[in-house]
Amino acid sequence: MKQTFDIAPWHVTTTKWSPEDKRIQESITSLANENLGMRGFFEEGYSGDTLEGVYLGGVWFPDKTRVGWWKNGYPQYFGKMINAVNFMKVIIKVNGEQLDLAKQTPSDFKLDLDMKQGIFTRTFNVEIGGTKLGFSFERFVSVTQKELVGQRIKINNLGSSEAKIEISSMIDADVYNEDANYDEQFWNILAKKADGDHTELVSMTKKNDFGTPQFTVGMKSTTKTDLSHKEDRVNEKSVENIFEGSIAAGAAAEFEKRTIVATSRDFDSESAITNYLDELSDALDAESFDGLLAPHIKEWASRWEKSDVEIDGDEGAQQGIRFNLFQLFSTYYGQDYRLNISPKGFTGEKYGGATYWDTEAYCIPVYLGVANPEVARNLLMYRYNQLDGAFINAKQQGLDGALFPMVTFNGVECHNEWEITFEEIHRNGDIAYAIYLYTNYTGDRSYVLHEGAEVLTEISRFWADRVHYSQSKNKYMLHAVTGPDEYDNNVNNDWYTNLLCRWTLQYTLDILDQVDPEVAKKLNVTEDEKRKWKGIVDNMYLPYDPDKKIFPENDGFMDKDLTPVSEIPSDQLPLNQHWSWDKILRSPYVKQGDVIQGLWDFIDDFSKEEKKRNFDFYEQFTVHESSLSASVYSIIAADVGYEDKAVELYERSARLDLDNYNNDTADGLHITSMTGSWLDIVQGFAGMRVRNGELHYAPFLPKKWNSYKFRQNFRDRILEVKVDKNGTDIKLISGDPITIDLAGKKLELK
Amino acid sequence: MKQTFDIAPWHVTTTKWSPEDKRIQESITSLANENLGMRGFFEEGYSGDTLEGVYLGGVWFPDKTRVGWWKNGYPQYFGKMINAVNFMKVIIKVNGEQLDLAKQTPSDFKLDLDMKQGIFTRTFNVEIGGTKLGFSFERFVSVTQKELVGQRIKINNLGSSEAKIEISSMIDADVYNEDANYDEQFWNILAKKADGDHTELVSMTKKNDFGTPQFTVGMKSTTKTDLSHKEDRVNEKSVENIFEGSIAAGAAAEFEKRTIVATSRDFDSESAITNYLDELSDALDAESFDGLLAPHIKEWASRWEKSDVEIDGDEGAQQGIRFNLFQLFSTYYGQDYRLNISPKGFTGEKYGGATYWDTEAYCIPVYLGVANPEVARNLLMYRYNQLDGAFINAKQQGLDGALFPMVTFNGVECHNEWEITFEEIHRNGDIAYAIYLYTNYTGDRSYVLHEGAEVLTEISRFWADRVHYSQSKNKYMLHAVTGPDEYDNNVNNDWYTNLLCRWTLQYTLDILDQVDPEVAKKLNVTEDEKRKWKGIVDNMYLPYDPDKKIFPENDGFMDKDLTPVSEIPSDQLPLNQHWSWDKILRSPYVKQGDVIQGLWDFIDDFSKEEKKRNFDFYEQFTVHESSLSASVYSIIAADVGYEDKAVELYERSARLDLDNYNNDTADGLHITSMTGSWLDIVQGFAGMRVRNGELHYAPFLPKKWNSYKFRQNFRDRILEVKVDKNGTDIKLISGDPITIDLAGKKLELK
Repeated sequence: MKQTFDIAPWHVTTTKWSPEDKRIQESITSLANENLGMRGFFEEGYSGDTLEGVYLGGVWFPDKTRVGWWKNGYPQYFGKMINAVNFMKVIIKVNGEQLDLAKQTPSDFKLDLDMKQGIFTRTFNVEIGGTKLGFSFERFVSVTQKELVGQRIKINNLGSSEAKIEISSMIDADVYNEDANYDEQFWNILAKKADGDHTELVSMTKKNDFGTPQFTVGMKSTTKTDLSHKEDRVNEKSVENIFEGSIAAGAAAEFEKRTIVATSRDFDSESAITNYLDELSDALDAESFDGLLAPHIKEWASRWEKSDVEIDGDEGAQQGIRFNLFQLFSTYYGQDYRLNISPKGFTGEKYGGATYWDTEAYCIPVYLGVANPEVARNLLMYRYNQLDGAFINAKQQGLDGALFPMVTFNGVECHNEWEITFEEIHRNGDIAYAIYLYTNYTGDRSYVLHEGAEVLTEISRFWADRVHYSQSKNKYMLHAVTGPDEYDNNVNNDWYTNLLCRWTLQYTLDILDQVDPEVAKKLNVTEDEKRKWKGIVDNMYLPYDPDKKIFPENDGFMDKDLTPVSEIPSDQLPLNQHWSWDKILRSPYVKQGDVIQGLWDFIDDFSKEEKKRNFDFYEQFTVHESSLSASVYSIIAADVGYEDKAVELYERSARLDLDNYNNDTADGLHITSMTGSWLDIVQGFAGMRVRNGELHYAPFLPKKWNSYKFRQNFRDRILEVKVDKNGTDIKLISGDPITIDLAGKKLELK
Repeated sequence: MKQTFDIAPWHVTTTKWSPEDKRIQESITSLANENLGMRGFFEEGYSGDTLEGVYLGGVWFPDKTRVGWWKNGYPQYFGKMINAVNFMKVIIKVNGEQLDLAKQTPSDFKLDLDMKQGIFTRTFNVEIGGTKLGFSFERFVSVTQKELVGQRIKINNLGSSEAKIEISSMIDADVYNEDANYDEQFWNILAKKADGDHTELVSMTKKNDFGTPQFTVGMKSTTKTDLSHKEDRVNEKSVENIFEGSIAAGAAAEFEKRTIVATSRDFDSESAITNYLDELSDALDAESFDGLLAPHIKEWASRWEKSDVEIDGDEGAQQGIRFNLFQLFSTYYGQDYRLNISPKGFTGEKYGGATYWDTEAYCIPVYLGVANPEVARNLLMYRYNQLDGAFINAKQQGLDGALFPMVTFNGVECHNEWEITFEEIHRNGDIAYAIYLYTNYTGDRSYVLHEGAEVLTEISRFWADRVHYSQSKNKYMLHAVTGPDEYDNNVNNDWYTNLLCRWTLQYTLDILDQVDPEVAKKLNVTEDEKRKWKGIVDNMYLPYDPDKKIFPENDGFMDKDLTPVSEIPSDQLPLNQHWSWDKILRSPYVKQGDVIQGLWDFIDDFSKEEKKRNFDFYEQFTVHESSLSASVYSIIAADVGYEDKAVELYERSARLDLDNYNNDTADGLHITSMTGSWLDIVQGFAGMRVRNGELHYAPFLPKKWNSYKFRQNFRDRILEVKVDKNGTDIKLISGDPITIDLAGKKLELK
């Protein structure tokens, strides 16, 4: 745990120059707009340790699958979002010496991420080329013009003599992935140009053997500066416009670079891409930098209008929740239904920029509250559109129906650990459950009765084929699965997975009773199939321990050595850095909630006593070594009345990256876990539930706080809920009147 | 299943030219002498599909470990025996046209492996260079001079005009492993020479990052021929002596190549290697080819003298058992205690030439019967000498004591599937059990009371730390293990593993009571430790099903869908080629005996009824998709009186490779499984057991056979057991008189 930035309500700022934290700082100052994004690396280059990552949404590469021994059913490739051609590069020389903060130590250094406006600024002074200059680097990734990234650099001559400046505005295709096998590069250059104030480079992903698409990407940068154009260079793997000029002592120079990026995701030929780049750059060239910034800033204001959370009495918590929403919205705001939310978004290579079940389990519940319903609906459509891939995945396993992938870009599985790929099939249930969540929250039944019914039916077909009937127990079972607690693998009868399987089958049967005849005809679910599903629902085995009256995570769990985690010496934690894998597997320690995840999904279906007993039992074994863990425990703790525990668990997820809790923020941010802090405040502290279409609240105020206030989107309305020491105040900010339930009392809001 | 060779008692012969079976033929005609060996590839080169493999015992490379996602405790590298510099190469040109049977189709083609003498001969006629020639290629890998390989080529001009011949005797370092990552090559050349009738090449394995040894290998070939020396070539990666001459119509030419190989395993410097090569080649050059062959042939005769098995009435079975013993002895005959028996020996790349638990479980019981006790003792010493590696493996898992590796060259684990590496720990018990086997069979207690006591103690320390106490069942358990049946992974309480764990602890306690004080002092087993071990022995959990009165393979096994394998459509077999891994895992199908393996180890500890019930139960689910499986089932079938079943199961392993049962002989031979046919005849059909130092037999004669006869080494004696329709005749061939038990009757042999 290490806090690298100062605390402020709307800014993430540091004035400390600390190269040892550079990767952490780069992660935290990442910017993105769903379509593209980058880490907060230094555009002028940095010869010390850095991860220069620029990523394009939906542009990925099917890399060779690396496994120990092949197993039938493995996917052909491991998909990953590759590091894009670096269009950010701006090489700066002062009196012949290249700016490189690994070589010149800066003073008055400052990084500032403005979360309200979506702007990252970096300023510092530095002795270079025999003089002293002040630099300011500003950048934004436009949330209104998805192709656009703006950079503005100001240079002040703080010395006593003239400074000769040379600046190269570069697009550089000589980039690597850190996770590449044998240092492979992934981009072939198709065209390159450098002409006065423009550079342009068109590249294409390397050919692969897997019949998956190759991507063509065009980039065009325009420079505006008061320096003079010196020359253009078209190098083997890069293009440059070079500018030069002198800044007198006390004077300043300005340099702007605006880059637009268009890809074959949106255009069907290389010429269509370059034509579009030309058109768009002409239009944007007419605008000033501030003119480009204005709509971007306005859009951020509108996002915050719908979603801001205010916390009084805990500035760290205030900053944390805004940072989390800022990075979540940067990663995805539902503008492109072909995109999704990778666990690290555009902030690092890990998890390969792909889609996980995190989206349905942790993100959709938040987007439902903080954005228009279309955002969540687009995420549901993403899966619907990938049904063909899910058929392939099920077929790979020799099973009927659809198995949505653990990791994917196009619906086809692209991950290769058998215990995950083949076995962590609860994901299929989570994807079904998200359909229910959306429908229950929004009241919009158009998805579930059409596309949703199809998704549910195919998932149910998978479940019905994946279960087996145990003659010895006269029950249906799911053997060989891995639950959300990945510290146990390949178990029999994971309670959570069995529960979701049973629930999905029943929900599908319910929905099938309601669909239009033409939908039913298309789905073609036979009476035999329905009978079989009903039989499974009625006879599904769910582990239960009659002594402890709890739900064992899986068969065999109660036979473990049940020593609480509190008895493990602290120098052995986190377990995943200190224990061998087999020791972890046979231990009772829980990486993230499994039974607790089920209690959250079906929070109204269990009694307070049941929830309390299970929480008490599992909490003592849970190490929360997944970033997705603590927030769910916090909600259950709040639900059963463990308020202090709920707050303690909330704190683990609220500032996970800002405080580098898991010592891995350097790799990128935990985008999908960032949702946890919002869920804890809204579902946990405020007790928000939607029951039969009605909003319910049962709030409490964390002891340390003076108040908290959040805005929530619900069925064409914006509500504002404020909880302080005097109680709860709920306002209708916009939309039609509505009756809500506050701690058991009906309240009509107008 | 496909029989590619003719049946004959002492020969494996074919006269069919079938390029589509070439790899199978190469595997089957492999030759080796424990120190080095090669597949029966064509030395003149073959531009069609071939696997040119030459391998050196104990020379290996630690390749990069390829895994999906890293797990704590994984080894640093994946070890493999690399394809050696190819010293067999002899390029032949006739009137300028190169001999290459992928291009010229041969007639009168014949491959002949003479198992009695250890000679592989290949003859054919071919139209080439406008004429017709007859070729004979003969080779042997000397079992008396471990460095020596001899090749003899005879060329007869069958045409009507003179044939101009050019022959290059080559040592070629431009070799690949088929399993290499990204086509890496592993050999760097240190020195090369070609001088008249000698070529010499010294090479060294590539540098690796793992602190494991690099190997230096020197090779020197000498040519004797009636052709004239033309020139020498020293190429970038090879060296050649080139000879030329003309063969008149009806005349013949001869060409001999003898190669010696010395490595840094035996010499500590490059100069020591080359000096030895010079000395040895001088000595061998004085000998004729037949002079070199003579002691080799004599040694094979002596091996057969001790071990031959004769079967009357089933020529296929006769050929099968001899082939199995021939290839087993070629792979290992106990001459070098630093070497071991890789599952594919010197016949292919798969299994990487490394040591597996196959050695202890399947090979030691055979060597005890067919060779001097030193052979088995050397195999025990191999493990003792690798104790340091076993300490490292246990420590990698955070555990006490010694964990012998699943796959190794030097004692350190070099395999990287977590479910195997971390979990298939029964191997530790098998290695302990082999100590008992050796001691019980030979009566020699010198190993078990010294080195063996140390091995047993450290294995017991591992077990005692690996078990956990289950508070819910009040029993010691082993969770997260994989048994010999690798079609179930990461299970709890594998009956076989738990049984071996308990047995090892008790056996170790027994042995510790008998060791000398200075041994006890060195081992330093405290009374606390002994108490703990005793506690585990007394309270070890062993799965038992009271309904079916059988031992469930593991917890959860009885909950599976227990549909017999006979109900699986035959086009889905073998499962490992048709079913996804997860489907296999959750099925009840058994790859190789797990409970049955335990019944074999402790065959006298269970009643006939117990064995029968378990055999009946498991046989219906067993698919025998490991080559190690059927032979053990055969022994248990014989033991419980299922004679026909025993014979049927025997047949699956007796001609496994000759008939390409598993459709994978092309990859190499199943060396360690070849032991199965001997075990089935001796332990199964003849019912041989050693009880309290006494030999017991309870033979039956397979219905199809007229008789079988085998020789067996037992405590300084050679016995011959003959079973025919009139009964059993047991003779003492050499050694002191001995009393044996034949079907319950004591018999004194003189």
